[in-house]
Amino acid sequence: MDAAVFHGEGDIEVEEVPDPEIRDPTDAVVRVTHTAICGSDLWFYRGQRDYPTPGRVGHEPMGIVEEVGEDVTHVRPGDRVFSPFSISCGECEFCRKGLHTSCENGAGWGGENTGAQGEKIRAPHADGTLVRVPERYADDESVLESLLPLTDVMCTGHHAAVSAGVEAGDTVVVVGDGAVGLCGVLAAKRLGAERIVAMGHHEDRLEIAEEFGATEVVSARGEEAVEEVTELTYGGANHVLECVGAESSMDTAFRVARPGGTVGYVGVPAGVDEAAFLDTAFGKNVGLEGGVAPVRAYVDDLMADVLQGTLDPSPVFTKTVGLDGVPEGYRAMDQRDAVKVMVKV
Amino acid sequence: MDAAVFHGEGDIEVEEVPDPEIRDPTDAVVRVTHTAICGSDLWFYRGQRDYPTPGRVGHEPMGIVEEVGEDVTHVRPGDRVFSPFSISCGECEFCRKGLHTSCENGAGWGGENTGAQGEKIRAPHADGTLVRVPERYADDESVLESLLPLTDVMCTGHHAAVSAGVEAGDTVVVVGDGAVGLCGVLAAKRLGAERIVAMGHHEDRLEIAEEFGATEVVSARGEEAVEEVTELTYGGANHVLECVGAESSMDTAFRVARPGGTVGYVGVPAGVDEAAFLDTAFGKNVGLEGGVAPVRAYVDDLMADVLQGTLDPSPVFTKTVGLDGVPEGYRAMDQRDAVKVMVKV
Repeated sequence: MDAAVFHGEGDIEVEEVPDPEIRDPTDAVVRVTHTAICGSDLWFYRGQRDYPTPGRVGHEPMGIVEEVGEDVTHVRPGDRVFSPFSISCGECEFCRKGLHTSCENGAGWGGENTGAQGEKIRAPHADGTLVRVPERYADDESVLESLLPLTDVMCTGHHAAVSAGVEAGDTVVVVGDGAVGLCGVLAAKRLGAERIVAMGHHEDRLEIAEEFGATEVVSARGEEAVEEVTELTYGGANHVLECVGAESSMDTAFRVARPGGTVGYVGVPAGVDEAAFLDTAFGKNVGLEGGVAPVRAYVDDLMADVLQGTLDPSPVFTKTVGLDGVPEGYRAMDQRDAVKVMVKV
Repeated sequence: MDAAVFHGEGDIEVEEVPDPEIRDPTDAVVRVTHTAICGSDLWFYRGQRDYPTPGRVGHEPMGIVEEVGEDVTHVRPGDRVFSPFSISCGECEFCRKGLHTSCENGAGWGGENTGAQGEKIRAPHADGTLVRVPERYADDESVLESLLPLTDVMCTGHHAAVSAGVEAGDTVVVVGDGAVGLCGVLAAKRLGAERIVAMGHHEDRLEIAEEFGATEVVSARGEEAVEEVTELTYGGANHVLECVGAESSMDTAFRVARPGGTVGYVGVPAGVDEAAFLDTAFGKNVGLEGGVAPVRAYVDDLMADVLQGTLDPSPVFTKTVGLDGVPEGYRAMDQRDAVKVMVKV
């Protein structure tokens, strides 16, 4: 079978790899039909985070179950399934608590056999990990494309909104216009936010933010942006979604927060070395909540909304490629030619 | 009148300064009877934080009202009062919300006329700022000494516990055995925590922690301490009080937190430059709540407990000096010969 393999900074190749097999009785093998390239894939692609080479990549799989281990009861061959970006058993303390990213038996995708940007994957803990698409929607291409962002970015944006304590009627600021930020806008809208100020630097993305429910967009940078948002919110917002994970965006998030408010953060803080934001947070008693999104905890609720037609995050996919086009997909995202790339395998 | 004045690193002198006067109709002048030296005073004393020189110091005043401006209605000459470490109007959005440290008209003590380590202070926004001790306790020395920590450290420890979400039956870890950490133990106990693990490096202080309600104390450092607490709590505590404000203590706090838990932090993060703790926080979805303590919001509840004899934080005062002894008090705290110093003016 073919799969995308990372060979070093800027070097992704699609090449032949061994077919995955059932190893543990709780495994399933899934033939991937749809997957995606994530902003967080760019960390290793750009050499900003260590990653094994050669290494299988991708963590947003959707496909058809081909084979299941003898202990798997929740899915069967032929089922259309997708998976959160993290593997979880569904049975431990943290899965029961809805914190599947801290699963005692968990892991991330990637590495041998489990890279989602390929023709097939081995899915460990299939009962806990895989989400089954109800049969009547299982071949509806439009529904599947709307569900695909639930593997990561939609649930991550939702986690930012939930962590920031967004409720109906609230004023919300979303920092970042990447796929997660855009999904954060959509999530805030879904939770009933009355005003949503989207902050970003790309006109085309801010247009999607408006389509997703942003009532105001702010494209200024630095001090000017903070002042503009502070004015728009009459002194800062109680709910701020930090959807980037950079030092400057953390700083901005705390500065536009109202005293006593909360920053919900979901951007991997890979570039946050200095803790200058902490002084702002401390002085204003602004809380920091969130972290890596426990997608599995949110996915059933969000899937229900997608299936009933009231939620559609698929506009974050501004480019679609086949498996052979994965290298081009990385390039497009790296160059910001695409917000997020869908891969139809 | 005499007052303590800061002249530069390690140099506090008691010298003659002008008597304070009413400037605004909302001012009061208070003759100080009791005050204290705070761990945060050591920041400028040690040259780790800028402070004006010469500069009046002290932010934990208790005394007798001498004179009030014409708009002051809440206190009268002769009243025994004390004040939180921050000045607040009691009327703005944030005072109404219980976030008096973000008061729109607020300020800190210190500077000309308002340094609490002196014979008198001018108290701005006296109605909002000053707390009146009920008349029947106004001259009870033992009660007054138990109330004095409510000006800062007791309410700060309480803020850590509240911010960390401590409720009856919880298991709590308190990082730091300074006066705030000890008050954090007392606050957690008061809120009904069932297990309280106190972390610190000083036997004498950990003994006070036990007296205050710690069920276990851990005096190891670094990795060993984290392992010990993780084992004691079977994988970390849901509620961690960070009562130091150093890089290492923030790191420890997040490492001993259970996934999905909360760190309540109240130690001024003066020494936290690198944000390494953020990786731990992000991966485990451990929230960071707290900041500078809105003492005024807590003081009525805690005073009620002191007056009914169920709360006594006064053991944090391990040394008492007169006004002339303030320089010696700073030295003793700097050298860790005293947990906290009371000043009887």
